[in-house]
Amino acid sequence: MEEKNLSEGDPLRRIRLTVAYDGTDYRGWQFQPDEPTVQGELECALNQVLRESIRVTGAGRTDAGVHAFGQVAHFDTGSSLACEVIERALNARLPEDIRVRQAREAQADFHARYSAVAKCYRYCLADVRLAESVLLRRTHWVRSTGLPGAALLHECASLLVGKHDFFTFSMGESHRKHHDCEIFRARWTVADEKLAFEIEGNRYLRRMVRMLVGAMLAVAENRAELQDFSRALEVPGRMSLAVPAPAAGLTLVRVEYPD
Amino acid sequence: MEEKNLSEGDPLRRIRLTVAYDGTDYRGWQFQPDEPTVQGELECALNQVLRESIRVTGAGRTDAGVHAFGQVAHFDTGSSLACEVIERALNARLPEDIRVRQAREAQADFHARYSAVAKCYRYCLADVRLAESVLLRRTHWVRSTGLPGAALLHECASLLVGKHDFFTFSMGESHRKHHDCEIFRARWTVADEKLAFEIEGNRYLRRMVRMLVGAMLAVAENRAELQDFSRALEVPGRMSLAVPAPAAGLTLVRVEYPD
Repeated sequence: MEEKNLSEGDPLRRIRLTVAYDGTDYRGWQFQPDEPTVQGELECALNQVLRESIRVTGAGRTDAGVHAFGQVAHFDTGSSLACEVIERALNARLPEDIRVRQAREAQADFHARYSAVAKCYRYCLADVRLAESVLLRRTHWVRSTGLPGAALLHECASLLVGKHDFFTFSMGESHRKHHDCEIFRARWTVADEKLAFEIEGNRYLRRMVRMLVGAMLAVAENRAELQDFSRALEVPGRMSLAVPAPAAGLTLVRVEYPD
Repeated sequence: MEEKNLSEGDPLRRIRLTVAYDGTDYRGWQFQPDEPTVQGELECALNQVLRESIRVTGAGRTDAGVHAFGQVAHFDTGSSLACEVIERALNARLPEDIRVRQAREAQADFHARYSAVAKCYRYCLADVRLAESVLLRRTHWVRSTGLPGAALLHECASLLVGKHDFFTFSMGESHRKHHDCEIFRARWTVADEKLAFEIEGNRYLRRMVRMLVGAMLAVAENRAELQDFSRALEVPGRMSLAVPAPAAGLTLVRVEYPD
């Protein structure tokens, strides 16, 4: 393959990737020099495949140890390689714990982050006494103190739906204009000594899902009052018990776009 | 803690352990000098906890990369530490991917391998196109060529039940007196683009479960005839297609004893 020589007038194609990864061995999505990151691995593979210096933009900057089934990213290229060829070539070069599930053409104005209308995250917990718990450590919060009953968790989840100021459940980033997020759906499911929390919203603050899970667990285990949780969603900054749940349990399930 | 000084007449206690592990990062159960093994890690932890040089005997010598929910092992000790204390102390010292699920007193004639009357293994497969396949690599055979229909798999499984000479589905170890194993139960289950095979038998030859899975997949994918599979269970040595399925998909689920 020869290095592409793009003349200035050449139209660039925008490509959209759906990416899955086991985040255990990465320092998160976002590129960091000399650290293994998902963005870094993707860009490295793209540069080899397309012989261009590519920058990818992801829908969500997942933290170190957080996984994804359906992260979405876009990039621009002067290459005319078919999407299926790009997809296969990327997967041949990427480490096994990062897989491109799909590469497809996107509109020129498609933006992985700004075009997204919703993101869905899942958080999984398991009881250490479960026979298979040793095989769940990378993808679950494996708890040695057992799992709480689900009644209070369900109550907490129902309080989340709607538009709230989630400042209490964030890292307190001051560069944000506001901390309002709209939650479309939030629910806990219980099965086989495991708990899973699924949340779908238009926007998330840093660590928000893990902070919410930590706070809901505190309520369910009577380390905090349901009322405190409820009030923290109305009056930001009132709940001090929001300790983030471990990264391993969190997965970015999918990102939704108007199409 | 002081080093124990056992006088010769001291009666030794026999302790039975139930052990779970993620075998991905181990060279199998059996101790090998300078290699990470599950037995090696257990003995190292026991030596620290009991201040004795302990040898453990496992029910099954799982291969490199094979997992266990319910491996059973026994050892003898002059220590009078309570089983719960031993269990907690071991788990505090063992790496996170090896957990002692239970330590309990055993009869002096209990033997983890020879007293066992049945062992149950599970083999799991998943389609690479499954969203979460990237999180299943350590515990499933993730197949890029898809999964076959289950009809022929069910037929194969039903042929396995009973007593057969499994030489065809072994590594051809000549030190064995015979290659007869009795299979009490064998079945495939299909769910959510995943396949699982569970088998319970009185005895297994080396790589037998993985060879059987490989052969059943070959039949289900029309790379081999059901008749050949059937005949190989009657006349050993007649089926050349028995390529072992990868270790990652296999888990020793439980070991059963007369009690």
